[in-house]
Amino acid sequence: MDKTILGVDWGTSNRRAYLIDQHANCLAEYEDDQGMLAVGERDRFGPSLDALRSAMGIDTTIPVILSGMVGSASGWQEVNYLDTSVPLTALPSHLAPVGAAPWSANCRIVPGYAYRRGPSIDVMRGEETQLLGAVVLGQRDGWLVLPGTHSKWVLLQDGAVDSLSTYMTGELYAMLSKGGTLSSLMGGDSSDAAGFTAGLDQAGAGEPLTNTLFRVRAGVVSRSAPVEQAAAFVSGLLIGAEFAAAARSLPAGGTVTVIGSPALAKRYAVAARHFGLQCQVLDPHRVYCTAISQFIKA
Amino acid sequence: MDKTILGVDWGTSNRRAYLIDQHANCLAEYEDDQGMLAVGERDRFGPSLDALRSAMGIDTTIPVILSGMVGSASGWQEVNYLDTSVPLTALPSHLAPVGAAPWSANCRIVPGYAYRRGPSIDVMRGEETQLLGAVVLGQRDGWLVLPGTHSKWVLLQDGAVDSLSTYMTGELYAMLSKGGTLSSLMGGDSSDAAGFTAGLDQAGAGEPLTNTLFRVRAGVVSRSAPVEQAAAFVSGLLIGAEFAAAARSLPAGGTVTVIGSPALAKRYAVAARHFGLQCQVLDPHRVYCTAISQFIKA
Repeated sequence: MDKTILGVDWGTSNRRAYLIDQHANCLAEYEDDQGMLAVGERDRFGPSLDALRSAMGIDTTIPVILSGMVGSASGWQEVNYLDTSVPLTALPSHLAPVGAAPWSANCRIVPGYAYRRGPSIDVMRGEETQLLGAVVLGQRDGWLVLPGTHSKWVLLQDGAVDSLSTYMTGELYAMLSKGGTLSSLMGGDSSDAAGFTAGLDQAGAGEPLTNTLFRVRAGVVSRSAPVEQAAAFVSGLLIGAEFAAAARSLPAGGTVTVIGSPALAKRYAVAARHFGLQCQVLDPHRVYCTAISQFIKA
Repeated sequence: MDKTILGVDWGTSNRRAYLIDQHANCLAEYEDDQGMLAVGERDRFGPSLDALRSAMGIDTTIPVILSGMVGSASGWQEVNYLDTSVPLTALPSHLAPVGAAPWSANCRIVPGYAYRRGPSIDVMRGEETQLLGAVVLGQRDGWLVLPGTHSKWVLLQDGAVDSLSTYMTGELYAMLSKGGTLSSLMGGDSSDAAGFTAGLDQAGAGEPLTNTLFRVRAGVVSRSAPVEQAAAFVSGLLIGAEFAAAARSLPAGGTVTVIGSPALAKRYAVAARHFGLQCQVLDPHRVYCTAISQFIKA
């Protein structure tokens, strides 16, 4: 019988679990809202994992690989960040056993990476697993983008992280939609093409975001800009800020590889074209399953 | 007997009222939380003003000058923005009578300004009254800064608005403190000198705010940056973004004039020095009273 392994992408708000064989086939999957914050106390992660296994009908003999915020100081067990000199394919030899018995027997956490550049630092937890999958699928060099709440731009060189920049794109968009001056203007379609393109244009002009965001309101209250486009404009401003920054280190016509859902990947592809870049898309599910299959041998 | 006038600075969340004579002396003042949002419905502004007059013991024969969000679409009556070709000293001839009788008899709203530069637009409502006061006090040219929730940078030329940029500095700071990834890190002293200076430094490097904000968290979780300084660092990032943008149009050693409370003015003075600029401070109370006294003749 084929060997199998259970991968759990255990984030802040949700977790997703996949039973995977050594050929990276996904045999079963499961998702719930028992993210790090919902679990809460450290000693509740073990029982919470047991509950997940029960729900999936999986016994405790199958090894478990955890990634994401479960390895943070507020998670099950804090796992130190790796230095970016450790290549992604070496992740299987850097797993951290977690918890007391019985979980510690075959339950391990994938460490994240810390990237230092002068006095400043950037970090990832969870994305390293996606990146390993991309490397195994042949994407050893170039810019990879993992859009979302905290959008990651990663430059790979020979299968190792050469640069990392995180943008609070999704988080800021959610904040601005939920409260404050702009929220009442952001009821429109966030994928409106004209609004999104106008936001990308504005982002490329290099003015401070705290000013360009206010001007969204100024445009609407002075009846110079259509309120229906405000949400898409803000999305364009925020995603455009990522591309405007990245465009400094990318040659014109260069390629970025987006690992994201079809809806987000489509929006990033539009932005890439706008900034004169090529865009290719990798399916996050395939990338993740490929990565987890690497840990079967570990 | 000297003529008097009642000035009401009626904002989104609060309102402040000052009884002023023609020499710009403040004879009485009053403040409450009956801002535009608390008043709500359009037809409740008149009774709300009556209540304010009662609280101050002022009868209806004294003229009233309203400024701020009371003149917006969600206020008592929407007053169109003036074009910036209208000089500030002409404001007394552009007042809008407000409401039905009995208020309309001697109750008027100061219009705001809309500033257009190519396709983009910026607006002010309320700050024009402060600016009028500054002009009357001799500040007819140069950069004026009105820090706050929506920080305004205004270039005056011969007593007229030549440029306007609004930054959502205070609003974004409040949002980031209240919820999301950074909020749990921002319990420290927001005026911590080392943290504030480090934030100003970072702002000057010209990287996107959505990235530098995330790196505040990265610094703390990787134990590279002291969590006690995070609030001041974020304040430095946001205020620094204003100066970094303004520094492009200001000669080194140039002067900015801040109209703000002592605490805020002090922080802006530190930032000005950091960016190689001179800073002078005007007292907002004096500036406001000076402006309102101009309307006695109107």
